[in-house]
Formats: sequence, C-alpha cells, structure tokens
Amino acid sequence: MGTIFEKIIAREIPAHIIYEDEMVVAFLDIKPVHLGHALIVPKQPFVNAFDAPGDTLAQMMKVGSLIAKRLETTLGAEGVNLIMNNGAAAGQEVFHAHLHVVPRYQDDQAFTSPHRTEVSAEDLAATAEKLRA
Amino acid sequence: MGTIFEKIIAREIPAHIIYEDEMVVAFLDIKPVHLGHALIVPKQPFVNAFDAPGDTLAQMMKVGSLIAKRLETTLGAEGVNLIMNNGAAAGQEVFHAHLHVVPRYQDDQAFTSPHRTEVSAEDLAATAEKLRA
Repeated sequence: MGTIFEKIIAREIPAHIIYEDEMVVAFLDIKPVHLGHALIVPKQPFVNAFDAPGDTLAQMMKVGSLIAKRLETTLGAEGVNLIMNNGAAAGQEVFHAHLHVVPRYQDDQAFTSPHRTEVSAEDLAATAEKLRA
Repeated sequence: MGTIFEKIIAREIPAHIIYEDEMVVAFLDIKPVHLGHALIVPKQPFVNAFDAPGDTLAQMMKVGSLIAKRLETTLGAEGVNLIMNNGAAAGQEVFHAHLHVVPRYQDDQAFTSPHRTEVSAEDLAATAEKLRA
C-alpha cells in the first residue's frame, strides 16, 4: 500500500510539481503554512530519515536549499524553515520521507518556540558520552 | 566577529562534541528541547542555507541522520525532528548555519502544529509556475 506521495510521483494523482530529478520530486503542499510551502520527496518510498540512505537525504537537503532560494527571490520570503519530521512521535503524518520547505515572514508567528529544558553539565556530559559510541 | 559556534569549533570554549569530520562538527545544545538535542554545524562560518554550498548542507543532513539513529538506539528516542531555521524571520538566532537534531517522545507536546492555510487551486498553480522558473 503506497502513500499519497507515491501516487503523486507516479502521476496517478495531480500535484503542483516544481522540481524533479532522478532522485527526488518537489511539489507544493496543498494546505501550506504559507503559499509556496513545498515538500521534497525521494522517488523511492523510504519511510523517513531512519530508513533513507544518506545520499538520498543529502539530495533532499540540496534541493530544499535550492527551493528555499527560489522562495526568497520569487515570493519575497524573509526566511525559510527546512524541516523533516521522522516518526509519528515527531509529528510525521505521511510515512514516505519528506522535507518541508516553509517560507517565513517577519512576525508571522507560524511556529511557536518549543520549551527548552535546563539541564546539568553532568547530564550533558553523560549523554554526549553515550552518543559518541 | 565570530559567533559562539566558531569559538566551539576552534575549541576556544568547551562543548559536548559528539561527532566531527572535515566539514562539520556536532555538539549538544546546552538548553535542549530534550536531552540529546544536538546541533550539526559546518566548520566554515556560513550564515544559513541561503549562504552555504549544497555539498555542505548535504553533509549536515547526512550527519544529522546518523545522530538521529544514535538518539533512537542509545537514548530510546521515538522520533526525531531535523530542523534548519534560515533567517531571523524563520527563528534563526545564531547566524552560523546549524541543523537541529531533536529527539522526540510520544505525546511530549514539544512542538505545536503550525496553522495551515486553505488556498485555492488557482493560487497553488500560479505559485508553482513562479517557482518552476
């Protein structure tokens, strides 16, 4: 069972495709944070960053930055978020890897800042030790 | 005038570095969304995705996915957000490019979903046309 993104890639359902190469497709999100909000999607149905090869993720990011620049130059975006949510716990809703490219405007309040935690130097050091392994 | 990240890269101030290669350094955010929240930073002081070369952004993303997997396997993260904020309007606070790697847990409410806009098919088509140029 494929996701809606596989059907878009296969041209079985229409989408506003703005970029395509051998590895990825980019199209507009139909319920955007702001108009121009695009999704960069690998053609192969990798689930997310835990599943997709590094080269695929790398190309998604390269194309994401290309689209970010176009949002700036053609739509006047004042900033751009590049966001990839991996796993339901991280807010992923479609289980075909995708990078959000979200145009932003000063004081648009599109995203609220997450709560940041006060942590001890000891906890940071112990966590870093685990992650270096 | 360098940012604090340049001082971390130069080892002029301490940080909990968890990964390093020729192009990027990864270290723990000292005010994390959750413990394990890491930043992937290019060694050259590029400002953000508008400024950094594609190959640098690609390597940041590759290393981001590597750290994401480590967050899952060593800390038990249930999901991971990979987030790059580009420009003050997008919430960028340190003007040295960085990719956030944020461990997530089911129902942690760390981020709220942004408001999505209802847009017409005509507006989407016109926007796609501009972005294809």
